Amino acid sequence: MYLSEMNREELTAFNNEAKSLYADFKSQGLCLNMSRGNPCKEQLELSVGMLAVFDDGNFMSENGIDVRNYGMLDGIPEAKTLFSDMIGVDDDEVIIFGNSSLNAMFWTVQVAYNKGILGEKPWSQCDKVKFLCPVPGYDRHFKVTEFFGIEMINIPMTATGPDMDMIEKLVSEDDSIKGIWCVPQYSNPDGISYSDNTVKRFADLKPKAKDFRIFWDNAYCIHHLVDEPEYILNILDEAKKAGNENIVYIFGSTSKITFPGAGVAVMGASHENVEELKKYLGISIISYDKMNQLRHVKFFGTYENMIEHMKKHKQIIAPKFRLVCDILENEIAPLGIGDWTDPKGGYFVSFNAPEGCAKRIVKLCAEAGVTLTGAGATFPYGVDPQDRNIRLAPTYPPIEDLKKAMELFVICVKLAASEKYLSEK
Amino acid sequence: MYLSEMNREELTAFNNEAKSLYADFKSQGLCLNMSRGNPCKEQLELSVGMLAVFDDGNFMSENGIDVRNYGMLDGIPEAKTLFSDMIGVDDDEVIIFGNSSLNAMFWTVQVAYNKGILGEKPWSQCDKVKFLCPVPGYDRHFKVTEFFGIEMINIPMTATGPDMDMIEKLVSEDDSIKGIWCVPQYSNPDGISYSDNTVKRFADLKPKAKDFRIFWDNAYCIHHLVDEPEYILNILDEAKKAGNENIVYIFGSTSKITFPGAGVAVMGASHENVEELKKYLGISIISYDKMNQLRHVKFFGTYENMIEHMKKHKQIIAPKFRLVCDILENEIAPLGIGDWTDPKGGYFVSFNAPEGCAKRIVKLCAEAGVTLTGAGATFPYGVDPQDRNIRLAPTYPPIEDLKKAMELFVICVKLAASEKYLSEK
Repeated sequence: MYLSEMNREELTAFNNEAKSLYADFKSQGLCLNMSRGNPCKEQLELSVGMLAVFDDGNFMSENGIDVRNYGMLDGIPEAKTLFSDMIGVDDDEVIIFGNSSLNAMFWTVQVAYNKGILGEKPWSQCDKVKFLCPVPGYDRHFKVTEFFGIEMINIPMTATGPDMDMIEKLVSEDDSIKGIWCVPQYSNPDGISYSDNTVKRFADLKPKAKDFRIFWDNAYCIHHLVDEPEYILNILDEAKKAGNENIVYIFGSTSKITFPGAGVAVMGASHENVEELKKYLGISIISYDKMNQLRHVKFFGTYENMIEHMKKHKQIIAPKFRLVCDILENEIAPLGIGDWTDPKGGYFVSFNAPEGCAKRIVKLCAEAGVTLTGAGATFPYGVDPQDRNIRLAPTYPPIEDLKKAMELFVICVKLAASEKYLSEK
Repeated sequence: MYLSEMNREELTAFNNEAKSLYADFKSQGLCLNMSRGNPCKEQLELSVGMLAVFDDGNFMSENGIDVRNYGMLDGIPEAKTLFSDMIGVDDDEVIIFGNSSLNAMFWTVQVAYNKGILGEKPWSQCDKVKFLCPVPGYDRHFKVTEFFGIEMINIPMTATGPDMDMIEKLVSEDDSIKGIWCVPQYSNPDGISYSDNTVKRFADLKPKAKDFRIFWDNAYCIHHLVDEPEYILNILDEAKKAGNENIVYIFGSTSKITFPGAGVAVMGASHENVEELKKYLGISIISYDKMNQLRHVKFFGTYENMIEHMKKHKQIIAPKFRLVCDILENEIAPLGIGDWTDPKGGYFVSFNAPEGCAKRIVKLCAEAGVTLTGAGATFPYGVDPQDRNIRLAPTYPPIEDLKKAMELFVICVKLAASEKYLSEK
């Protein structure tokens, strides 16, 4: 029976039972963390072989550069080959960064802000700068634009990607809109992959601002959870067809392929974009860690091997996603107090509680020892207007801990939802 | 005989001989690079053992964090212990960065520029921002301030450090002066170590701008070339004594201790400075490469072992510095056409040619196949007002190549100097 259909008496009984179950959990003194999309230990072990690749004593890049020394600002050639395949650009359309694509994104926004893009006025000199933010989205994207005082505008997500009608209208009318944050495949947190039509419409955008850029964070490009995964169109190819090749900056990393703390980040864009950015990059660094670049290349050899490697990740984490969705299906669906995604890839399950309940649920979980991503974090300025969205990150805990955490989670959802309905009776 | 004392006939003969020797060199088709302070292959080999430290399969930091995963924004505790010793601050006054101290410095200037320091107005919102630049200095420092449109003011170097009278006067009068670039030990390129009095005067500075910061790039803190090295006073200790502890940002790295492309960079400052910077750091990155931090800690164990390790570097490169200085002493000193430093540490020999000759010498060398650091590079905007200074980087070439390059160099100095004197007769 849906909670919305219960009378006051039924709701009170339901609420009392949830309270009692919650008290039981609280007494267990749990201490579990589901707040971030961290790989688990078994996943980290998959790449330990990478640490032995220099046992041969060969530190030479294919162009004869010793990777231990300075030089090769934009990356060694073999890393460009491997990672340009990953993000779908040519070898000369790529820059290899350090261990963090977030850092590459921050740096890129910083360049636009302080120096401008391809001859346009630096954003810092504009009266107003705005970014479009598909919501729910990735909190760390929003923090970057917030740092620079950029105004963020929420764009609703649909099953095929962000609301393109709204985006097309806004960017064509307002030249203070300079960019949009996108996670196009297995979006964070919804797990939505943009449809072909959505990608084409992005590639075809005709923004009023010449220096409008799509920040295309393809963080989960090969991070599939199912045997028949989703693929998205290549945005740079589509943009080229539309004569619009400068419109997109593509980002990716191996943070969730090898090591989150010690992976390789990469950026792809048109030749013109990349050449301008490289000019500025040399001011902020001499070279990134090329030993780690070569480590990755020696370990994987080919892009195909990277894809094979990701199947091992899938084996470890797919059952965790299954567990989360099954528990929600069994415990929440019959009550009509939430909806969620069952993603085919990526790192999150996005849960929508009844309006006004997300903060309460996260607080209840925390007080019983389970840390979730803060409610509101998936929205700019940390404000979820409906207080509904909670990002669940199933990968890190061992499956028995995850089960425990999810049992608590559904109790907290039931408790918060019944409180809400009771208060409205 | 000094060139300045030769008559026209003698000068012509001298010039003709230099021309002839130069033509000989040119015909040899050399291809040598002395432009940057790159360690040589033998130096890189010293740290290869570092790559085996994870053979034990133990990836745990002493606080129980798996260094392969996300987390520990400001570094693992054992890295803080090791590297805070290196730059002379407490464990809680340190941030561990990625592989590049230049990147840490760029980021720090960027924070001051875009967000301001401890509540002061962001530099981007000031009518004018100026930096003091001891000259000759490090070209990459100057490029960072140039990127942000910061006006740079040359400060002459003396044998005990930058001209402190000038600095004290300027910073006390002009609140648009927000910082100064310093390489306090074995300065780049002069190899000068700041005297105790200089360090104390820096620590005692009373700048008009509350957000004035000394960017103390202690890049060569343990990079000695002699058995009885120079030491400088601890700037943060001195600043604390003067009630001035927020005035300095200290930087260092292992780029020239382990691997230039894959070392660890570090920053030290007062607790208040560090806490503010950490707040912003978490916006631009989740964590730096903690595997590389632990790799360094496991390899060295203690700061004392790092110092021992540097003695092996000294054995390899000190003879190269000796060679450079001996050739200059034998070939240039008797002619009075240049002066230079004989540094006790660091990575450079700073050569001052007769006025107006530096560009010509670098060009002559380049045309005969030896690349030097561009003349002017050691000054802001690439402009050496007297066109005198040339930075020689002896570490990278094998000693026989270095000898060849220096033989050419002195011929080019003789050629350029005799051209100059002839033109003035």
